[in-house]
Amino acid sequence: MQFNALTPELVSAFEHILSSAHVLLPQHTEADQYEAYGRDHTEDFHFPPDVVLRPGTTEEVSAIMRLCHEHRVPVTARGAGTGLSGAALPIHKGVLLSMERFNKILKIDEQNLQATVEPGVVTEVFQNAVKEVGLFYPPDPASKGSCFLGGNLSQSSGGPKAVKYGTTRDYVLNLQVVLPNGDVIWTGANTLKYATGYNLTQLMVGSEGTLGIITRVVFRLLPYPQHNVLMLVPFRQEAEAAQAVSAVFRAGIIPSGMEFMEREAIAWSSDYLKIPLTLPEDITAHLLIELDGQDLEQLYKEAEQVYGVLEHYDVGEILLADTAGQKDDLWRIRRNIGNSVRYNSVYKEEDTVVPRAELPTLLKGVKEIGRRYGFKSVCYGHAGDGNLHVNIIRGELSDEQWNVGLREPISEIFELCVKLGGTISGEHGIGLVQKPYLHIALKEANLNLMRGIKQVFDPHGILNPGKIF
Amino acid sequence: MQFNALTPELVSAFEHILSSAHVLLPQHTEADQYEAYGRDHTEDFHFPPDVVLRPGTTEEVSAIMRLCHEHRVPVTARGAGTGLSGAALPIHKGVLLSMERFNKILKIDEQNLQATVEPGVVTEVFQNAVKEVGLFYPPDPASKGSCFLGGNLSQSSGGPKAVKYGTTRDYVLNLQVVLPNGDVIWTGANTLKYATGYNLTQLMVGSEGTLGIITRVVFRLLPYPQHNVLMLVPFRQEAEAAQAVSAVFRAGIIPSGMEFMEREAIAWSSDYLKIPLTLPEDITAHLLIELDGQDLEQLYKEAEQVYGVLEHYDVGEILLADTAGQKDDLWRIRRNIGNSVRYNSVYKEEDTVVPRAELPTLLKGVKEIGRRYGFKSVCYGHAGDGNLHVNIIRGELSDEQWNVGLREPISEIFELCVKLGGTISGEHGIGLVQKPYLHIALKEANLNLMRGIKQVFDPHGILNPGKIF
Repeated sequence: MQFNALTPELVSAFEHILSSAHVLLPQHTEADQYEAYGRDHTEDFHFPPDVVLRPGTTEEVSAIMRLCHEHRVPVTARGAGTGLSGAALPIHKGVLLSMERFNKILKIDEQNLQATVEPGVVTEVFQNAVKEVGLFYPPDPASKGSCFLGGNLSQSSGGPKAVKYGTTRDYVLNLQVVLPNGDVIWTGANTLKYATGYNLTQLMVGSEGTLGIITRVVFRLLPYPQHNVLMLVPFRQEAEAAQAVSAVFRAGIIPSGMEFMEREAIAWSSDYLKIPLTLPEDITAHLLIELDGQDLEQLYKEAEQVYGVLEHYDVGEILLADTAGQKDDLWRIRRNIGNSVRYNSVYKEEDTVVPRAELPTLLKGVKEIGRRYGFKSVCYGHAGDGNLHVNIIRGELSDEQWNVGLREPISEIFELCVKLGGTISGEHGIGLVQKPYLHIALKEANLNLMRGIKQVFDPHGILNPGKIF
Repeated sequence: MQFNALTPELVSAFEHILSSAHVLLPQHTEADQYEAYGRDHTEDFHFPPDVVLRPGTTEEVSAIMRLCHEHRVPVTARGAGTGLSGAALPIHKGVLLSMERFNKILKIDEQNLQATVEPGVVTEVFQNAVKEVGLFYPPDPASKGSCFLGGNLSQSSGGPKAVKYGTTRDYVLNLQVVLPNGDVIWTGANTLKYATGYNLTQLMVGSEGTLGIITRVVFRLLPYPQHNVLMLVPFRQEAEAAQAVSAVFRAGIIPSGMEFMEREAIAWSSDYLKIPLTLPEDITAHLLIELDGQDLEQLYKEAEQVYGVLEHYDVGEILLADTAGQKDDLWRIRRNIGNSVRYNSVYKEEDTVVPRAELPTLLKGVKEIGRRYGFKSVCYGHAGDGNLHVNIIRGELSDEQWNVGLREPISEIFELCVKLGGTISGEHGIGLVQKPYLHIALKEANLNLMRGIKQVFDPHGILNPGKIF
C-alpha cells in the first residue's frame, strides 16, 4: 500500500473537525505526553505518529475517516495502550486516533440486562457501574483497572472469568462502527439471538482495529453473582497442577476462575506488591480456584467437591480465603504477575492456548525448548481455558539473541500449540509481534480469506496498516 | 451471475468421484424420494435440483466443489430439510449436496469437554450420545429429533435453552470447511479462547451455506445438569405474561427455558398430540419456565423465588410438573406447536426478535397489524430471548392475499421489530422468504460488506445462489 504524508492542509481540516485542543502535533505537545501515544505494554517499542487526534463523537470520527480515506493517510485507533501484541502502535505513522474521550456509559437498561457504552470507558469503571444496580459484566483482563472496553473488543480479550463466562466476544450484542470511508453502521441488533445475514458483529470483535472504528457498543449483562469462594492450592509438581484442572471440570464443576501460576510468577508478584505469602520450598506451582453463584451454601458444597478432586494430587495446605481483603490480595497477586515480570526485566509474552487437558504437555514442552535454547520463562495464566502466558525473560540475553535468536524457539512453542489442537493467541491478538508466526497457525487459504475481507472493508488499506497479516 | 447447466460429462465426473448410487438423477430416482430433496419445512415450496449428490467424505466434497467452481454450476447444501426460511432450497437448480452421509460422531473428548462430529448428525442423537458420558450439548431447536447439526450451524439455530446457554454459535470451536474452489480449511482452533486473526468460525455460522460447506465440527460441551424443575404458568392477560419474563431475570434468576405460548398455540398442539390439558376460559397465554442445575434443593429455592415474582401478576393455577412423563408432555406440546399449526393450515412463520422487555409491545403491535390487514396469527416462542414466532395462518386467504397482500403487513411487523431494537430473524435465518425484507433491518452499507465477503469466498457465486441478499 502507498500512503501519503500528512499535509498542513489536512492538519487544518482536522482542526476544523475537532478543535486545535484535540489535534496534537509533536512540535506543540509536551514530549512525555506525545511519546506515550507511541507506546503500549508490548516489550519496549516506540512508534510515534505524525499527529494524535482525540475525537469525541461518532460524527467527528466519520469526518476524520472520510478525509484519511480520500487522502490515503494511515489511521491507527488506540484505547488505553495496555495491549500486549503491539496492535495499537502506529508503525506506518499517520494519524493516531485516541478514543480516550469516548468515555461515557450511555445507558444501563435494567429491564433488558443490557448497557450501551462508548469504547473509551475503562473496563473496571463499567463493571462497577453495572454492579451498583445488581448486574454483572464478567470479562476482566488483568489490566481491567486501566484498559478500555474498545481495546478489549479489538483484541477479543478474556481474563480469569472467561472459563465460566466467556470472553468479551460473548457479551457484545451490537456495535456502531465507522467504516474506513466514513460510513456509519450498526453491525447487528440489541438482541440475544441474531440470524440476519453474516455476523458482522463477531467479525469486528478481534479484528484489531483493521476493519473499522468502534464508536458505540451494546453489551448484554448478567445478574451479579452475590457470593464467591476462593482457594489457593499449592502443588508439589507443576504437571499435576495442570492435570487437576481437567479433573475439576470432569467432576461437573465450572469454576468462575481457574488460574495457574508457576512458583516464580506468584513469588515475583507478591514481592512486587509487598504482600507476604508463605511459599514452602517443595511447592512448584499453584492453582487459584474461584467458585461463584447466588447461594453461599451451594458454593461450599461445590468447594467440598473440589477438595475431593484435589485429594488425588500431591498438594500442600490449601488456603481458603475467608475475608474480602484476603480474596482481594490473592487476585491482586494474580493480576500483577505481568507487572512484576515487567518490573524485573524486559520480556516477551507469548499468549499460548491449547485444549485444557493438553496444558501439562504444553508446559513441559515450553520448559524443554527453553532449556535447549538457553532462556528462562515464567509461566502463568488461565488454566481453565488452556490459555498459558509464557513470559520469556530477557535477563542477560544479547540484542542478537533477543531480537533474532528467539524466533526459532518461539516458533517451536507455537508449533507445539498447533500440534496440540491450539493456536498462537488466546486473548492478546496478533498485532505486530505475533505476525511473523501467523503462518504456523493458519494456512495460506485462511490468510487469503482474511486479506480479502480486509480489502472489502478497507480498500485503501489505511486502517492500522501492517498488523495481523 | 451466469450459471451453466449440468452436462452428461459432469454427471459422469460426479459418478467417478462418488459412485452411481450416490448420484441421483430425477429420471432414475423414485419420484417421492426425489421430490423430498426439493422441499423443506418452509410453507409449501418445491424447487427440484438437476441432480442430488450424496458425498461421504471431505475429499469427495472438495472434488465436487472444484468441478462445480470450474464449470459454474450452482451447489446448494442440504441438511435434514427442516429449515423455516427456505435456505436449503435449490432455487437455481444445479447440484443439491445432501450431507446425510456425514452422520458420524467422530470423538467425544471427556477430558476437554469437546466433541468432533460430522454435520449430518441429528441434533438429538448427538445430545444423547454426550449425555451418556455426563456431558451436555444445550442447543435444542424444536426440530431436534430430525434436524442436522450442520443445518443448525448454517442458520445459527437456537431453541428454548438458548436463554441460559446461548445458541449453536456459542458451542462451536472449530469448523472444517470446503471452500467453493475446493480448498479445505479449518476456521480456528479447538480452544475456548481464540484471538488469531479474523474469526472465520463465527463468520461461517449463520452464513446459510453461501460461503463454504462445513464437513467437520468441533463443539465444546458442558457438564450435564442433573436436575430440572418445570412449571406451566397460565396468565389471564397476554401482556402480563410478556411482562413477567423481564421480572424473573431482574430477580437474578436465569431460567434454562422461558417459553411463551398464546392460548391457541398450546390448545392446537395439545389437540394435535392428543395430550389432554385443562384450559380455563379466562386464560389467554402461558409461560413454560424451566430451571436446571446440579442441585435439586437449590432449584426448589429458585422456583420459590419465581413464584414470588409471579404473585404480582394475574395468573391462574401454576402446574409444577413432577414426573418425567409430565415434563416430557409439556415440552412435546411446546415443540409441536409448529407441527400443529402446519397440520391446521398452510402458514408463514416470522421469526421476530426484540430485547426481551419489548415483547409486550411487539405482541400488541402484531395483533393490531393483523386486525388491520385481516389475518389471524398464532404467536409463541422463546420469551426469555425476546424471540417471538409469529405464525400467520393462511386460513381462507386468497392466492393474491397470501402471496402479495401479506407483504405490507409483514414489512410493518419487521419495521416494528427494528424500531424496538430488534431484527427480522432470531434463529431461522433469511434464506429465501425473508430476503425481500432484509433492507428493513440492514443498511445498504451493511449489505455491501456482506456482498463483498461473499465475493471473497465465492467469486463465481455458485454456493446457494439467490439466498440472503
